Amino acid sequence: MRLSRYLLPILKENPREAEIVSHRLMLRAGMIKQQAAGSFTLLPLGLRVLDKINHIIREEQNRAGAIEILMPTIQSADLWRESGRYDDYGKEMLRMQDRHERDMLFGPTNEEMVTDIFRSFVRSYKDLPLNLYHIQWKFRDEVRPRFGVMRSREFLMKDAYSFDLDYDGAKAAYNRMFVSYLRTFERVGLQAIPMRADTGPIGGDLSHEFIILAETGESEVFCHRNYFDLQVPGADTNFSDDSHISEIVDAWTKPYAATDEMHDERAWGEIAATDRVAARGIEVGHIFHFGTKYSEAMNASVTGPDGKEHFVSMGSYGIGPTRLMAAIIEASHDENGIIWPGAVAPFDAVLINMKPGDEKCDRVAGRLEQDLTAAGCDVLHDDTDQRAGAKFATADLIGVPWQVIVGPRGVGAGEAEIKNRASGERIAVPIADVAARLGSAP
Amino acid sequence: MRLSRYLLPILKENPREAEIVSHRLMLRAGMIKQQAAGSFTLLPLGLRVLDKINHIIREEQNRAGAIEILMPTIQSADLWRESGRYDDYGKEMLRMQDRHERDMLFGPTNEEMVTDIFRSFVRSYKDLPLNLYHIQWKFRDEVRPRFGVMRSREFLMKDAYSFDLDYDGAKAAYNRMFVSYLRTFERVGLQAIPMRADTGPIGGDLSHEFIILAETGESEVFCHRNYFDLQVPGADTNFSDDSHISEIVDAWTKPYAATDEMHDERAWGEIAATDRVAARGIEVGHIFHFGTKYSEAMNASVTGPDGKEHFVSMGSYGIGPTRLMAAIIEASHDENGIIWPGAVAPFDAVLINMKPGDEKCDRVAGRLEQDLTAAGCDVLHDDTDQRAGAKFATADLIGVPWQVIVGPRGVGAGEAEIKNRASGERIAVPIADVAARLGSAP
Repeated sequence: MRLSRYLLPILKENPREAEIVSHRLMLRAGMIKQQAAGSFTLLPLGLRVLDKINHIIREEQNRAGAIEILMPTIQSADLWRESGRYDDYGKEMLRMQDRHERDMLFGPTNEEMVTDIFRSFVRSYKDLPLNLYHIQWKFRDEVRPRFGVMRSREFLMKDAYSFDLDYDGAKAAYNRMFVSYLRTFERVGLQAIPMRADTGPIGGDLSHEFIILAETGESEVFCHRNYFDLQVPGADTNFSDDSHISEIVDAWTKPYAATDEMHDERAWGEIAATDRVAARGIEVGHIFHFGTKYSEAMNASVTGPDGKEHFVSMGSYGIGPTRLMAAIIEASHDENGIIWPGAVAPFDAVLINMKPGDEKCDRVAGRLEQDLTAAGCDVLHDDTDQRAGAKFATADLIGVPWQVIVGPRGVGAGEAEIKNRASGERIAVPIADVAARLGSAP
Repeated sequence: MRLSRYLLPILKENPREAEIVSHRLMLRAGMIKQQAAGSFTLLPLGLRVLDKINHIIREEQNRAGAIEILMPTIQSADLWRESGRYDDYGKEMLRMQDRHERDMLFGPTNEEMVTDIFRSFVRSYKDLPLNLYHIQWKFRDEVRPRFGVMRSREFLMKDAYSFDLDYDGAKAAYNRMFVSYLRTFERVGLQAIPMRADTGPIGGDLSHEFIILAETGESEVFCHRNYFDLQVPGADTNFSDDSHISEIVDAWTKPYAATDEMHDERAWGEIAATDRVAARGIEVGHIFHFGTKYSEAMNASVTGPDGKEHFVSMGSYGIGPTRLMAAIIEASHDENGIIWPGAVAPFDAVLINMKPGDEKCDRVAGRLEQDLTAAGCDVLHDDTDQRAGAKFATADLIGVPWQVIVGPRGVGAGEAEIKNRASGERIAVPIADVAARLGSAP
């Protein structure tokens, strides 16, 4: 992609409205544009990151046996009257009437609709376990949306819903999503710690928030240092082996970890002071078992092996991909801009032509663009007539993992310079070797 | 994918509410579920088709130089007051107020928002041409939604918007989208004919609807038989060569083609009777040049080479991917079900185990599933305990291009049967050769 033909509206000044670093950097790097309070367009660079995050989420949901569907954004109020939540939900729900004066709403979540889908089609325990997810826009009309896509009103959410015959089945489904989330967050470059969360009137211990530590976190969190040494399960994890998956969950829930609201001072006091980590955290995922709350209210049952009808036991599992973009930046940036983990970077490399118009530089840059593309490296070619300093600043700001710098002196020596954005390390490489080098880079 | 672990709710009966064949088949094949009037969930099989269609649309938009962004669904009424359309749009617009009583709406289209994005970031003719597109949910509150996803209220739309310095630039942008659409429709398996459409108060001749011929079409259309012999331009088409692109458009607009409302009886009468094709048609795309209508109203201008400010000349280009699913079925089905063109089929093959529980059949089917997957063939393995007849009926109904049939007699002879869904042709193939055969099949 040639930058001269792209839309990358870099801001030189820090936007005044941005209170946290991710919001500031997303605006400055031309990733988003605010359209209304808590509502954003994803500009080309931002959409590329979102697509990569969604792709990873999908792969890990599918690996864990969840099946993707896509429910509409606008829902009928009648469905929410069945569960009793239409009246309960309050002002966060965006409500409207259609031209026939039927009450409708923009879905803030999908328990009701997915339960309706389930009861329409599934009759027997033989069709379980079932886990349906979708990645769809939600709207929650927050009083004071802020922090950019971290707390917006219209946001993307991956929400999965599991259906099982009984509590044991539901717990196995919960465990699969637990492990799937560990893998998902690691793949997008985050170290997320599962922390017990409040289950409210449902009770039980099956609710976890996945938290990343960041100075700008919204809440205080507490955990044992051991979490930093735990190994995230690999891509070969066998999700059909319930006891294996359960062991992984045990290992990841054994050390102390709690959000502010679940914090237990006594248990905390029993941990050696040097093992205690008290920090600020950002919630990036939430998994929750709620049993028969919706299946009873909405009459979603299956025939069991005993020939009787059983209300299905359910759970829900959410990740906000738009929020995740911001969380990754909170966790990975420096004073010059974003530092994208490779797996979610908008491009693999920025190719900087320091002297466009110079015949040799143009030729070498053109050739490197072709070579890198052929090597499977997604490259943004800065062919604009900006001065070199501005190009370097832009490349650092947008945080692409590698920079390939083509200038008259290097070209004269048959070399290009490669810079690693994260480490700052620069090396000179023969022009012919650049593609092979970056094509195989992590 | 094992069918026993999938959600594929096949209907045996014809649903009474479905008036046209695509709606009937999408319900029967378990692709969609209606959630409210004109609102549908895409079930797993339906979503797979939609994803493939979107992927092709994206590739062809990108190839033609358009850049993907993603705008929110909910828009501020203020933006639409600038263009004057907030009052004009009428009851098709779904309107609401947020908790602060600000007027909002669910976007039926995005001219205003994309013009706002343009004017925020683009200042100079040097940044043109620019074409921004997104694939996002729209809502139009039709009085009487019907025909399933063919005419729903909430629907997916790919809408692109081009920005150019002047009419000549805008015409070149229009031509690129024209050719991009020819390629897109051919790749999804449709023969679409561009027909001049009404430009209303804008005037000029830059408006075309892309129409496919189908008995169940919504309107009468007229065209010259020559269209069926025209060659759709290849993947190597050079979209940066304006005059080449213009020649393609000329070739595709020369023969007579008109929708009912643009039909010219005199021109029609001059065509030899044997060359006249009068049929029913379904609109699958619409491209439209509207000049400075929105840029003047919303003050979107750039500095030209003359140093003066120029309101940009714009066009919009729409394809409805959800509608396209239905249109493809209208064009490609038989009495047994859907016949998917390979490029948009939800799976490449259905693997039918006629006798699950039989040790040899299970072993061979398991091995074939692995082999086919390894060969890059996306396979749905029917491992359920339904009787063979029902499995064949399901495979025909969901319209996957190939069926691989594993039964006790064939397994005894070391063979599986391969059936081509479109032609009905069946052949016996050594088990070891099945994957190589289908992995390389078109």
